[in-house]
Amino acid sequence: MLPIKLTRLIQLLSRFPGVGEKTAQRFALYLIQNQDLAAQLGKELTELSSSICVCERCGNIAERANPGPSLCRVCQDPRREARLLCIVARVQDLLAIERSGAMRGRYFVLGRLLSPLDGIGPEELPLRQLLTLTAEQGVEEAIIATPPSVDGEATALFLARELGKRGVKLTRIASGIPHGGDLEFADQITLGRAIDDRRTLGS
Amino acid sequence: MLPIKLTRLIQLLSRFPGVGEKTAQRFALYLIQNQDLAAQLGKELTELSSSICVCERCGNIAERANPGPSLCRVCQDPRREARLLCIVARVQDLLAIERSGAMRGRYFVLGRLLSPLDGIGPEELPLRQLLTLTAEQGVEEAIIATPPSVDGEATALFLARELGKRGVKLTRIASGIPHGGDLEFADQITLGRAIDDRRTLGS
Repeated sequence: MLPIKLTRLIQLLSRFPGVGEKTAQRFALYLIQNQDLAAQLGKELTELSSSICVCERCGNIAERANPGPSLCRVCQDPRREARLLCIVARVQDLLAIERSGAMRGRYFVLGRLLSPLDGIGPEELPLRQLLTLTAEQGVEEAIIATPPSVDGEATALFLARELGKRGVKLTRIASGIPHGGDLEFADQITLGRAIDDRRTLGS
Repeated sequence: MLPIKLTRLIQLLSRFPGVGEKTAQRFALYLIQNQDLAAQLGKELTELSSSICVCERCGNIAERANPGPSLCRVCQDPRREARLLCIVARVQDLLAIERSGAMRGRYFVLGRLLSPLDGIGPEELPLRQLLTLTAEQGVEEAIIATPPSVDGEATALFLARELGKRGVKLTRIASGIPHGGDLEFADQITLGRAIDDRRTLGS
């Protein structure tokens, strides 16, 4: 009943993460009713691949360099310690850590986590690229910053085993009560971790 | 910290209905990591305005006719009764009614509802277009199919008053327990309506 062009647009929009067909239809109808937005977005997306890409080394977003390899700002920065590597699941996590200013090394974006329930096994992780990068940069410490979820912990354990074989020192980001958080409303696992991973105070 | 092109893309995506900045960023990063999707979507959106538009008469989606006025399928169909008009809030509602096959007349899409809390008053409704269309088509009955919400009811009352002055017969879609619905879980207003608007059974 819908024009073919519209059906096609809805199909494409429903490939966005977390967007189902109803939401995609809502977006498509909004774009038809706001044709200036559609035109601007069309222009930006058409030009996207010539200006932005994925960093060839770490998976962060990068501005496309032509010719030469497209590296992100972190990988291009000579002041960043190449021997300290932070492994994250998604670019969003990398951006969050960068905002904190707490990381002086480089990154590696996995793009996904192990998830047996979704059929994502170890062979789906970019392990070879990670090991190549680790060897090339002479990484001494890898901070595994996958989220403290079931999938994130499974991925951390798997990576720790693989990187441990290569003599890399492995660390895991701390898990506990967040800054400003309330112990009363913390879940049991978080509270358990906060107690187990307690640190010594004073000198 | 993000490339300007990406910031711009996030800004545009955050204009989608119900999409905030975080979600827009997620969409943008997904598009960068899936450049085939970005390219296809860019092409579709660039071509959108030349193929699909809003029906000049009723506000439904229409394939663009060039030259000549762009009318939707319903407005083009001579078998549709021009004297029966169904007034809806959104194109989605029109599509839902069309799927039901229960409407043999034409439509008018308001595009919005009265909403004093959001600062949407009567002057924001396309009343003049509605009255013009009603006069031109010789509409005898207008079915007000705005949703049975506070805003929807307020809009229905307002339209009923305005159209009533012009001698149009006004009806409102029924409100009650939905087909397959459970009385136990129906809210009080819905149950109240189901009782108040009861109909006579048998001959």
